Amino acid sequence: MSDFPYVHRERVRFRDCDAMGHVNNAVYSTYLEESRIGVLGGLVDFILARVEIDFRAELRAGEQVEVRTRCPRVGTKSFELEHVISADGRVVAEATSVLVSYDYGRGESVPVPDGLRDRLAQGQ
Amino acid sequence: MSDFPYVHRERVRFRDCDAMGHVNNAVYSTYLEESRIGVLGGLVDFILARVEIDFRAELRAGEQVEVRTRCPRVGTKSFELEHVISADGRVVAEATSVLVSYDYGRGESVPVPDGLRDRLAQGQ
Amino acid sequence: MSDFPYVHRERVRFRDCDAMGHVNNAVYSTYLEESRIGVLGGLVDFILARVEIDFRAELRAGEQVEVRTRCPRVGTKSFELEHVISADGRVVAEATSVLVSYDYGRGESVPVPDGLRDRLAQGQ
Amino acid sequence: MSDFPYVHRERVRFRDCDAMGHVNNAVYSTYLEESRIGVLGGLVDFILARVEIDFRAELRAGEQVEVRTRCPRVGTKSFELEHVISADGRVVAEATSVLVSYDYGRGESVPVPDGLRDRLAQGQ
Repeated sequence: MSDFPYVHRERVRFRDCDAMGHVNNAVYSTYLEESRIGVLGGLVDFILARVEIDFRAELRAGEQVEVRTRCPRVGTKSFELEHVISADGRVVAEATSVLVSYDYGRGESVPVPDGLRDRLAQGQ
Repeated sequence: MSDFPYVHRERVRFRDCDAMGHVNNAVYSTYLEESRIGVLGGLVDFILARVEIDFRAELRAGEQVEVRTRCPRVGTKSFELEHVISADGRVVAEATSVLVSYDYGRGESVPVPDGLRDRLAQGQ
Repeated sequence: MSDFPYVHRERVRFRDCDAMGHVNNAVYSTYLEESRIGVLGGLVDFILARVEIDFRAELRAGEQVEVRTRCPRVGTKSFELEHVISADGRVVAEATSVLVSYDYGRGESVPVPDGLRDRLAQGQ
Repeated sequence: MSDFPYVHRERVRFRDCDAMGHVNNAVYSTYLEESRIGVLGGLVDFILARVEIDFRAELRAGEQVEVRTRCPRVGTKSFELEHVISADGRVVAEATSVLVSYDYGRGESVPVPDGLRDRLAQGQ
């Protein structure tokens, strides 16, 4: 996984789990969100347009979860991120996010800023 | 409970429950918050200064939860709300919230608005 | 949308929203989960294998959200659900879930029960 | 705060915050829960009977939150925990939890186990 340059780590909370005793599916999206904040340096200039998650294995409270992220594609106004979520050496989910650069002031999508484009390109 | 004039109802979500199979303690605060929004017509002008919750019984996914609220006391800049949370005829929690009227623009507490004071007084 | 036979409705909570002021992306998965419970009559015999969500518009606290669901395909051990999430007449997200029938006692996937298969077929 | 022997630390998630832009009040209970797990080594043998939280200041996404806990009182079947939640050197909340030792198999409260009693006594 050397080509997934961004790594986010956090600990699974008891509250992340549901009545089945393992992490609820919605919380994987929260781990992805935290990883995106790390990659993008914040979320205020982006809209999450799409997410796909393949759930591979269970996660439990107290485990250390690791989200590795890379950017396979940057378009004019949008880009993709690929994520592998793992814990204790096993892959628990694989995911793809599609983000759109957005100017909330003007209320419209805008070109991906050059600085971010360069940074993401280093992660391709 | 005829002296608890405000009633908020909602359905317990699967996600509200934790690995013990019943509603997680933190989610009771979310039910209280929804009931406060009903009483106050919004939250933007108030700060929650204190909450006390006595947990009496378990709540399960799919149950209808009911939060009954009354206002036992209005001070100059703050007021109390008493809540009884029940489901299917049994009390599952009793709680007290202390709220402070706040002017976020000026960054300071302010007197409870007269309109709200009158409305709360009808619930005493 | 007459061919989406299952309808789940709930009210957006203040807690569902994030610092951007609208419903956080992870919470859409919670709405989908509640709708699946309605379709399946529970979640204990199924594993969510995959979810895709296209986010179309913002949702705000206090809105009534509606999840319409249909089943476009039933395989031997798995099936798909398509969901349209809307509020106040506008589509806010479209999603697909892939579920696998699972026997937790034996720890393995099993054929979709005939009763469920028949019920889902009526929704195709 | 040298007499608060238990320390739990975690990072505030974006999802912990609400539309006001800071950590939602219910999430403080989740931080307390994580700290209790650290003190008790798990939650399965205890019931949270009561919680009190005084909110002192705002917390924001990305901050490191620290929960310091001590045990001021151990009764026959219950005990109290006092918590100070802080971030970046400022106190953001003070809280008290009351827990009851519980035998879920027998469905009744039981004496606080001697091992835990001794451990908690060291934190008084």
